[in-house]
Amino acid sequence: MTLEARVAELAGDVEPADEAAAAAARARHDRLAKPPGSLGALEAVGARLAAVAGTCPPPVPARPVAVVAAADHGVHARGVTPWPQSVTAAMVRAMCAGDASVNAIAAAVGAQVAVLDVGVAGPPVEHPRARRARVRPGTRDLAAGPAMTREEAARALLAGAGLAEELLGSGCDLLVPGDMGIANTTAGACLVVALTGRAAGELTGRGAGADDATLERKRAVVASALDLHRPDAADPLGTLAALGGLEHAALAGAVLAAAAERRPVVLDGLAACAAALAAVAIAPAAAGYLLAGHRSPEPAAGAALDRLGLEPLLDLGMRLGEGTGGLCAVPLVVAAARVLAEVATIAELEPGAAGP
Amino acid sequence: MTLEARVAELAGDVEPADEAAAAAARARHDRLAKPPGSLGALEAVGARLAAVAGTCPPPVPARPVAVVAAADHGVHARGVTPWPQSVTAAMVRAMCAGDASVNAIAAAVGAQVAVLDVGVAGPPVEHPRARRARVRPGTRDLAAGPAMTREEAARALLAGAGLAEELLGSGCDLLVPGDMGIANTTAGACLVVALTGRAAGELTGRGAGADDATLERKRAVVASALDLHRPDAADPLGTLAALGGLEHAALAGAVLAAAAERRPVVLDGLAACAAALAAVAIAPAAAGYLLAGHRSPEPAAGAALDRLGLEPLLDLGMRLGEGTGGLCAVPLVVAAARVLAEVATIAELEPGAAGP
Repeated sequence: MTLEARVAELAGDVEPADEAAAAAARARHDRLAKPPGSLGALEAVGARLAAVAGTCPPPVPARPVAVVAAADHGVHARGVTPWPQSVTAAMVRAMCAGDASVNAIAAAVGAQVAVLDVGVAGPPVEHPRARRARVRPGTRDLAAGPAMTREEAARALLAGAGLAEELLGSGCDLLVPGDMGIANTTAGACLVVALTGRAAGELTGRGAGADDATLERKRAVVASALDLHRPDAADPLGTLAALGGLEHAALAGAVLAAAAERRPVVLDGLAACAAALAAVAIAPAAAGYLLAGHRSPEPAAGAALDRLGLEPLLDLGMRLGEGTGGLCAVPLVVAAARVLAEVATIAELEPGAAGP
Repeated sequence: MTLEARVAELAGDVEPADEAAAAAARARHDRLAKPPGSLGALEAVGARLAAVAGTCPPPVPARPVAVVAAADHGVHARGVTPWPQSVTAAMVRAMCAGDASVNAIAAAVGAQVAVLDVGVAGPPVEHPRARRARVRPGTRDLAAGPAMTREEAARALLAGAGLAEELLGSGCDLLVPGDMGIANTTAGACLVVALTGRAAGELTGRGAGADDATLERKRAVVASALDLHRPDAADPLGTLAALGGLEHAALAGAVLAAAAERRPVVLDGLAACAAALAAVAIAPAAAGYLLAGHRSPEPAAGAALDRLGLEPLLDLGMRLGEGTGGLCAVPLVVAAARVLAEVATIAELEPGAAGP
């Protein structure tokens, strides 16, 4: 079977989320011992979890995991970021050693972290906790030609899907896609422009600290790359190959695998949102398995969430990636599930507790 | 020593938070292996925790506790809520049995729940997990005269402080004030109007589901109670006695006790915010120990947070009280502390990881 056929097979495994279970959750919320609607957004999360699992009350997530896909970007050479490319490998090592922000935040919310080198430049990251599936040592320069071949994009996608399948198979039950890749907000903006049809100038942001001159260069790179490739939004794998990063492809695969396994995905910032948009373009039913954790200040992330119809749980001004924003929302997702599973109904309390 | 003298003694135990430690935390954030400022509001939380503890990095909260103070309200007779008064006692029983929303959410974030009956109406709540310190079986009608005597307010305040001291003494290290009390958004709005000087009409909200006619009555009750008592904001105990609830007084005491012990307080909705405002009026330095967990849709809660200079971490449309909104923010506070304690500095990574 070709790699593309395997992607299509994975997409075919994604069944629609169960909207009847979501309706059952909404009805259950109204019977609980609290004023109707008084848990706000947590109630919508609970309903989504029911739809994901196909049952109400939904299972309480007990083993969340962040899948951090790391890769480098040929477009780095265009001066789209103030950070040297070597930071990608250094941060992969830091994540494997437990020294990065994603590790601290994962520990705070009871999640584990899996780091996937799907395309970091330079020598291999030698660490027992690094998962190695390097498709190539960084993409080619998307401003000069396709960032990847279709086969490379498919291979990266399947590597992310494979890791997610392994983690979910070993008991993980909630996925937070995370990323590490210097220059990847340039590729991320390109993907969101291509998949939403919105304007490049409007969706290009400062990423991890671009100054005005760098932002101007970045905008020009995104706009000219879109002109060069004229991507077809109906061909998401081709769009990923032309304009994306290896980590975007890997995270799209992880999202598809989680959806196929009926597990919730809590999105982080631009890289995760761009990857989710690509995943939904590949398998539209995957949209039913997504929750938005945090509103990234990157305009392309907001555009992706708008297109996906998702309202983020958090808006904390975080712009780090790594999965940190998604992880911060995990306890809210767990709380929403526990409310449906554990809170008594008004009928279960004594008669004096009847509502208004 | 009189009860009022004991309140003054407690207030005297609150020392200013350590702003030098907050500055050290901000400087440390800029040295960590991430773009400066990229953790957004988490960095402000980390700095606040350093100020609270007087050290950087601050300790990581390991035993958060919600203190839910429960009481009834004489003003219930004025028709300010659709809920029967008996719901207070029923929900206290549910919380003791682990069946309420606060229990489910506390479990999700690794917190314990302590329920204090400081003034519920009716027969005692017989449950081994109910803490009993009933000052009186509900307040008097604040629209007809003072809700409590000064001594009753002081006694309720000291009951809340005593429970907080006991919990912090036994190892709890982060406090979330919570409330249960049918009609308590009426008393809460009165307190915030009295302590901020803002307009009654503007700060009275729908609480747990008031319809238009009920809201109109509630507005009139709040406005006429303020006219009747003409409270002196410089006399916060007198203001609590005239217009507050026993749970507001108890939570003000819990806030003061946590501040005196240099432990962080994560505020919930209107009851907690009104109590914090009273606590800060009693001991201004207590403000340095506060974090806002969730933005309640109740306008008086927002007014209290504005006055306290606090920006909430969450805005999820929750309007339940019980401490639920504050608890939802606890993992963010833990995450902020872990970032300062556990993330490597750029200097600790290898040279290749140097910043831009």
